[in-house]
Amino acid sequence: MYKFIERGSITSASGYKAAGIFCGVKRAKKDLALIFSELPCNAAGTFTLNKVQAAPILISKNIIKSNTKVRAIIVNSGNANACTGENGYLDALKIQENVAKFLSIQLNEVLVSSTGVIGQRLPVEKILNGIEEIVTNLSNDGGELAAEAIMTTDQFKKTFAVKVELSQGEVTIGGICKGSGMIMPNMATMLSFIATDAYLEKDQLQKILINSVNKTFNKISVDGDTSTNDMVILLSNGASNVIIKPQSADEEKFSLALTALCEEMAKAIVIDGEGATKLISVVVTNAKSIDDADLIAKSIANSPLVKTAINGSDANWGRIISAAGKSGADFNPSKAQIFFDSLPILCSNYTVVLNEEKAREILSNKEITITLDLMEGKYSTKWWTCDFSQEYIKINANYRT
Amino acid sequence: MYKFIERGSITSASGYKAAGIFCGVKRAKKDLALIFSELPCNAAGTFTLNKVQAAPILISKNIIKSNTKVRAIIVNSGNANACTGENGYLDALKIQENVAKFLSIQLNEVLVSSTGVIGQRLPVEKILNGIEEIVTNLSNDGGELAAEAIMTTDQFKKTFAVKVELSQGEVTIGGICKGSGMIMPNMATMLSFIATDAYLEKDQLQKILINSVNKTFNKISVDGDTSTNDMVILLSNGASNVIIKPQSADEEKFSLALTALCEEMAKAIVIDGEGATKLISVVVTNAKSIDDADLIAKSIANSPLVKTAINGSDANWGRIISAAGKSGADFNPSKAQIFFDSLPILCSNYTVVLNEEKAREILSNKEITITLDLMEGKYSTKWWTCDFSQEYIKINANYRT
Repeated sequence: MYKFIERGSITSASGYKAAGIFCGVKRAKKDLALIFSELPCNAAGTFTLNKVQAAPILISKNIIKSNTKVRAIIVNSGNANACTGENGYLDALKIQENVAKFLSIQLNEVLVSSTGVIGQRLPVEKILNGIEEIVTNLSNDGGELAAEAIMTTDQFKKTFAVKVELSQGEVTIGGICKGSGMIMPNMATMLSFIATDAYLEKDQLQKILINSVNKTFNKISVDGDTSTNDMVILLSNGASNVIIKPQSADEEKFSLALTALCEEMAKAIVIDGEGATKLISVVVTNAKSIDDADLIAKSIANSPLVKTAINGSDANWGRIISAAGKSGADFNPSKAQIFFDSLPILCSNYTVVLNEEKAREILSNKEITITLDLMEGKYSTKWWTCDFSQEYIKINANYRT
Repeated sequence: MYKFIERGSITSASGYKAAGIFCGVKRAKKDLALIFSELPCNAAGTFTLNKVQAAPILISKNIIKSNTKVRAIIVNSGNANACTGENGYLDALKIQENVAKFLSIQLNEVLVSSTGVIGQRLPVEKILNGIEEIVTNLSNDGGELAAEAIMTTDQFKKTFAVKVELSQGEVTIGGICKGSGMIMPNMATMLSFIATDAYLEKDQLQKILINSVNKTFNKISVDGDTSTNDMVILLSNGASNVIIKPQSADEEKFSLALTALCEEMAKAIVIDGEGATKLISVVVTNAKSIDDADLIAKSIANSPLVKTAINGSDANWGRIISAAGKSGADFNPSKAQIFFDSLPILCSNYTVVLNEEKAREILSNKEITITLDLMEGKYSTKWWTCDFSQEYIKINANYRT
C-alpha cells in the first residue's frame, strides 16, 4: 500500500524546495534551514505542552490555529530563542518578515522554528544576513541539506519519504526531523517537518496528523524531559492533483502511510538519542484499558534503572515489573509475563524461566523488544526508548560549554 | 528545643537493642540486622506505593494496620524478596517465626524487611541460621552495626539521633536508614527505622510520622524510580516514662525534632545517592498553591538534564525553567526568578543577570540551593536531589553481575 523511498526526504514530495546553510549561529556547522512550497499549503501542527514556550512556538501555533495557507518554514539550530521574553518574540518576527520579503509572500505564510540552547538572545543579524542566501539556494533536492541544518546534538541527519498508491494516482509524503535530548512524550526538542503533494482539507490534515503523532512521536522517550520548542508540522500543497476525500478509503491508506513515516522518524530520533547504543521497543499487551497500557509502557520507557540495565545487557527483569508497578496503572503484577524478543523471562505467578545466557545474547543486540503481557484485558500499546549510557551524562554535563 | 547526639543511632533511645551480622546473603559484607525493644512498642509505618510489593512489605503493613504491639524488626540486605510470589511470602513468614521463637515473643510482634535484588528467592536457610547468632549479639550500642547490615550500594552507614527536652523530661529519637538507588518520592529502596523512648498513642504516632515523612523522605529524589520494598517505621516504647499527650505543646516539640531527624536521614540518603557528587536543595517559593510548588520542585529534582548540568557545574538555568514548565503546575514563567544560593541568575521578564564565573563557583560546591521564586502566590516547598554522574550509569548497568 505504501513504499519507502530510498534516501527520500521532504523534497521527495512534488512542489517543495528546501535548503540548508551555515549562517553563524553555531561555530561551524549548518544552522539555518528553509522549506518552501511553490503552491499555498494547508498546514497542520502539534506543539510542545511545556508551559514555557519559545517565541517561534507562539508565532507558528497562531498561524496553524488560523485559516491562512502556509508557504514556508524557516528553522535555525544552535539557539532555541526560548525564555527570551519580548525581545525574543521581536527577533522571531524579524526573521519571519525577512523570509516573507525575500520569497515575496505574506508574513503569516511563514512558520518559524528554533532549536538549541535556552535563554540566550538569538544572533538575529547573522540569521537575517543568511536569509537572502538561503532563498537563492532553494532546490528540489535540498531536503537533505535542510535536515542537516536542523541538527543539534544529533549524530546523523534524519530524512524519510513514502509513496502511496491511491484511487486517483500516486502521492508522496516526505519528512525531515531532529532529536535528540529532552525527548519525552508530548513533544521534546523534537522538530519534524512533513510535506505531501496530496491535497487534504485543513481540518482533515490536522486530525490525521494528531492520530499519527499520538501513535509515534508521542510514544518515544529518551530522557523524560520535554522541551520548550517542539513541533511537528504537516503541509499539503496538492501538487500531485490527487485530492483525498475525508473518511474515504484513500484517507485511510494515506493515514497508514503517514503513521509509518512518522514511526520511522520517531525511531530514528530514539536511535540517535544522546548516548544511546540500543533501540528498545516496549510492548505492553492485554491491559485492562489503553490508558493502563500507556502508563505502564511510559513508566518502563522512562525508568533510568531499566535503561541502565539494558545498557549493561543485564536481564534485570525485576526493574521492569517494578517500573510497571510504580506507574499508577491498574494491574495484577503476579499475573504478568515478560519476554525479551520472543524469549520468555517471567511467567505468571512470578515463575522465573530466565535463561541468563540467551537473555544476555538478546540484550546485546542493537534492537530489543521488551514485552510485558498483563494477561488481563485486551488493550495493547508500543513505545520506543533507548538505553542510558555514560555518554549521555558526558554530553549533558557540559552542553553549553 | 532539640539537639542532635554525636554518633547517635537507633539504640540511643532507651530500651532498644540492635545487632548486625553477616549470614551469607551477600558475598562478604554484613547482611542481617535486628532491632529489639525490651518493652512492647506502639508502631507507625509508611510503605511503598508501588503496585508491586515485596513479601515483607505485605507482612509488616498488616502488623502496622492492626493494633498489636511491636517488639522487633528483622532486616536482611542483598535480596529484596520481591516478585517471589507465594514461596517468597512463606520465606518471610519462616524468618518472622524464627525471630519470634528465639526472642520468645509473639509472631506478630516481629516486623520483617528486605532490600536488594528483585525476583530471586531468598537464601532462607542462611538467614534462619543467622537468627540464633544475631539474637545473642543484641546490644545497647548495636545501632551502628545494624545500620551497616542494611546497606546495599550505600557508601556509608546512616545513623542519627536527637534529644528533645519536654515538660516531663528528656526523650530521645534515634534512627538508621539506607538508600541509595531507586530513590523517589513516596518511598524508594529506602529503609528507615526510627525508635523513641517517649510514649505516644498508636494513632498519634502514625499521624506524626506521616507528617514528618511528607516533609522529608517524600521530598527526595535520586533517580525517579520507586522501589518495591520501601518502609519507614517508627517505634515508641515509653522507656523514658515521658508520655506525650496528643495536641500538646510537647507533641509539637517532638514532631519538630522527628522532622529534623528525618530531614538529616533523607539528606544522607541523597548525598549517598548512586554516583552522586553534590547535594542539591530545590526551593520553590511564592507558588499559587502547595501542589503547584511541589509539582515544580519535583519536576526540577527529577530532571536528568538539570542533574547532569549541575554535575558539570554548568549554569544552564534554561533547563530549570523548562523542567518547571513541563511539570503541569500553573504559573507564569515570565514572572519567575532563579537563584543559585543567594546569587541571582534570572530576574522577571527573562532578564538574565547570570555571572558565569560566580555561578560556576557556586555550582562547584558540594551543597547547592536552587531557588525558583514564582512571584505569584504564597506557598513554598523544599526538595532534595543529587547530581547525575557517569558513575550512576556504571553502578546500575551491572548491578546484578
